[in-house]
Amino acid sequence: MGRTAIWTDISGKLQAEIGTGQRQPGDKLPTEAELSARFGVNRHTIRRALADLADRGLVHSRRGAGVFVQAKPLDYALGRRTRLSANLAAMGREAGRDILSIETRRADPAEAAALRIAEGAPVHAVEGISMADGLPIATFRSVLPADRFPTLPDALRHYNSITLALTEMGVADYTRAETRLTAKRASASTALRLRLREGDPLMLTVSINIDSDGVPVEYGHTWFAGDRVTLTIAT
Amino acid sequence: MGRTAIWTDISGKLQAEIGTGQRQPGDKLPTEAELSARFGVNRHTIRRALADLADRGLVHSRRGAGVFVQAKPLDYALGRRTRLSANLAAMGREAGRDILSIETRRADPAEAAALRIAEGAPVHAVEGISMADGLPIATFRSVLPADRFPTLPDALRHYNSITLALTEMGVADYTRAETRLTAKRASASTALRLRLREGDPLMLTVSINIDSDGVPVEYGHTWFAGDRVTLTIAT
Repeated sequence: MGRTAIWTDISGKLQAEIGTGQRQPGDKLPTEAELSARFGVNRHTIRRALADLADRGLVHSRRGAGVFVQAKPLDYALGRRTRLSANLAAMGREAGRDILSIETRRADPAEAAALRIAEGAPVHAVEGISMADGLPIATFRSVLPADRFPTLPDALRHYNSITLALTEMGVADYTRAETRLTAKRASASTALRLRLREGDPLMLTVSINIDSDGVPVEYGHTWFAGDRVTLTIAT
Repeated sequence: MGRTAIWTDISGKLQAEIGTGQRQPGDKLPTEAELSARFGVNRHTIRRALADLADRGLVHSRRGAGVFVQAKPLDYALGRRTRLSANLAAMGREAGRDILSIETRRADPAEAAALRIAEGAPVHAVEGISMADGLPIATFRSVLPADRFPTLPDALRHYNSITLALTEMGVADYTRAETRLTAKRASASTALRLRLREGDPLMLTVSINIDSDGVPVEYGHTWFAGDRVTLTIAT
């Protein structure tokens, strides 16, 4: 067996201190100089160890302020029945939702294709913010066919829940047909909604939900704050 | 049905021009002033339409240079048998892999827990770059138990493929037990490997592969270039 790289050893020790709770989320790590002195290595080696921890999402650096232990992100299971509230309840966290706007307008080409309706047919576009324990974790835009669900806006204002509003519309159950996922930088407006900085990394999921007959009922875009949510996929 | 927001209409038209191939990946869009004149609206409305296209990953802006049509990202299916080469071959694209380093060292606590081996037991850590048609799309670190696969480094150097190397070690098949996904900013070293800019958005997947008896054989981190890959999840 070959040598153990010194930086690996140091990042492993710091990781163990985080893992055991000796260093808590939000704690500032010692400075590079202090870590150099503690481990008896040069600052280049400390920087390599810290970069490794940052690459793995265990710490993050704030310019001029230092390196901090990352808050534990929320696990969000992507599956056939992806519901935020159920995901959060399973972790003992409180789900919240702010609906910012409900607009009825014509479907654009992508929306029409996803919902299998005619281009220009009417859709309800719902925008809002999802929260966990009061902290915004995602902003979303859901688009639903308005010819099929003409009174959805009222139901949505009443229930503040797409799942419950769809139940009232006679869609007792719906499932996730497909999810597509990319990483994006937060735009200024998204950053504001999620209380992030412009340019912070986001996960964008684009999904189609179908009813029990396989007919699309919802076409959704969700922008998750990259450092607050871990999407999990059981395969 | 209410009004159609003007910016939605404009972003829909531009999206259609991209979708039909009238505007190709890499093409520069007209300037804000030109688009204002064409659609007869003010620049604030044009900016809202462009921001919407950028939010949905259809265009990206380069400071001082303008707004460009995004290259079509590669679809990468996350499933039980997630193999890059099969994913790429399915799309008629050529897979490549550069193995940058193979190191045998002690498992850190997270690696030991994922592979269900003793902390400090030996592992092979393989780092490299995955490419599609010569363009880097991801950088990875795979960690495999060295006690079980003592001659893996030789097999890996021979085959340049973890799948083939594991076959030679007697692991005829392995499947993905779990994938965890977050968004990150590219560090300087990762940006260099992926030919991105520091701070560009990445998707980080952390996964465990198991053999047919359910025993972990590989613990992997993969950093995907956010604008070159779309992860797809069929549910």
